[in-house]
Amino acid sequence: MYEMITSSSNSIIKEVKSLYRKKDRWMKKNFFVEGIRAVRECVDSNANIAYLVYSDMLFSINGGKELLDKISQENYNINYISDKLFNEISDTEKPQGILAVVSYDLKKIDEIIKDKENFLILLDRVQDPGNMGTIIRTADAFGSNGIIVTEGCVDIFNPKTIRSTMGSIFHIPLLYYKSACEAIKDLKDRGITVITTSLDANEYCFDVDFKRNFALIIGNEASGVSNEIIADSDLLIKIPMPGEAESLNAAIASSVIMYEVLRQRLKF
Amino acid sequence: MYEMITSSSNSIIKEVKSLYRKKDRWMKKNFFVEGIRAVRECVDSNANIAYLVYSDMLFSINGGKELLDKISQENYNINYISDKLFNEISDTEKPQGILAVVSYDLKKIDEIIKDKENFLILLDRVQDPGNMGTIIRTADAFGSNGIIVTEGCVDIFNPKTIRSTMGSIFHIPLLYYKSACEAIKDLKDRGITVITTSLDANEYCFDVDFKRNFALIIGNEASGVSNEIIADSDLLIKIPMPGEAESLNAAIASSVIMYEVLRQRLKF
Repeated sequence: MYEMITSSSNSIIKEVKSLYRKKDRWMKKNFFVEGIRAVRECVDSNANIAYLVYSDMLFSINGGKELLDKISQENYNINYISDKLFNEISDTEKPQGILAVVSYDLKKIDEIIKDKENFLILLDRVQDPGNMGTIIRTADAFGSNGIIVTEGCVDIFNPKTIRSTMGSIFHIPLLYYKSACEAIKDLKDRGITVITTSLDANEYCFDVDFKRNFALIIGNEASGVSNEIIADSDLLIKIPMPGEAESLNAAIASSVIMYEVLRQRLKF
Repeated sequence: MYEMITSSSNSIIKEVKSLYRKKDRWMKKNFFVEGIRAVRECVDSNANIAYLVYSDMLFSINGGKELLDKISQENYNINYISDKLFNEISDTEKPQGILAVVSYDLKKIDEIIKDKENFLILLDRVQDPGNMGTIIRTADAFGSNGIIVTEGCVDIFNPKTIRSTMGSIFHIPLLYYKSACEAIKDLKDRGITVITTSLDANEYCFDVDFKRNFALIIGNEASGVSNEIIADSDLLIKIPMPGEAESLNAAIASSVIMYEVLRQRLKF
């Protein structure tokens, strides 16, 4: 029913390959997701799918035919390519023969903030794509209403980040700022308290009232947040660590604080 | 002061290489750690260092000479090898020219349990070395008194697991059981409550009293804990997830529960 694309100079193939580069992802406002589970999440979340690409290997994967049947019934642009080409464009060791190119939409702060009890996450120079994706996944699970990414972070649309979000990239509004300080200014102008985790803080996270209007800043894996951000923050908090470990993984530390927020909001 | 080893058939070189294999790590009861930070942690934690290996590239790394001076003053077996050989035995992309081979010691349950308020972690078929290492790091930070690993888990002495523990592998007692059920029996025989996270649980983690004598079971990343373990557990708990994400990363979920334990123990 679809004609098979077999040439690597085909424009679809070339475009998917270009999406490995951050520059192209940002210029085209597109990224891609791969595999049955991710494509299904993408379809179920009503993501803005530009087009889909599949190859015969999809039929040898459990649930592959069903997914293709499902998307074929809807009004998607579907492209059929050879297994050889699929291997060429895939980012994974065991490609499943299905991939979606998704157009994304970055929000502006006034589109996403609520009147009260905002629970925003601001990422400052987070470098590991797995950490970034995991933080987005947890923020989605625990009810954050938006993720702010800044220039110095690993690209949020990097294939590994996208995989680690496990679909949450389609659920939670994303904002982009050139610098964390610029974002902090916009947050403060709107009455949003800026809270930062710091090993030097005096206050433990469980002693802070999170039933408030706030944004939580998460810093770099090795160096934490910058002094400039510390100075700009309204409140510094820390996580108790009675054991011998000197620090927590960045995704763990942020998730623990996000859980504390949720616990307070649900429990009292 | 040390004679340089240049032959890859040298017995030290061959042994380090053999420690890439789980079978050899378990047979020899040795594993290795690499890099300035990890070796320093290893020395500071009084780990049982069988021998150290360094090469000239260590001197081009910040803090390298100081570390070598420090270890040279103590009674360690130190081996000097060529940079070429160091690159051969290193597991990292940017080797730092220092590595320690460490002898480990697995504990028995009666060596580590306390009279009351045990806080043990039992890992069942955890597959990702990064998750495993991160869980050990968090357990150390949050004051767990022991980690039980079972046969179906990724090897705890895998280089990637060791790296992800960020030194916590040297701080927290480790126990090994052939099966989780066998471990559960030993725990129950000693009056330790077995608590398992399950998406099907009725009770939220913040409604459970963790000022008790317990072990927390953490299951496989994709499939969770087995039905057999669910049946053997005294208590099933879950983490609230009001958002759209279907689940949390395994290391995040376990860390959130461990934080809840700590919060209750510190706060009330």
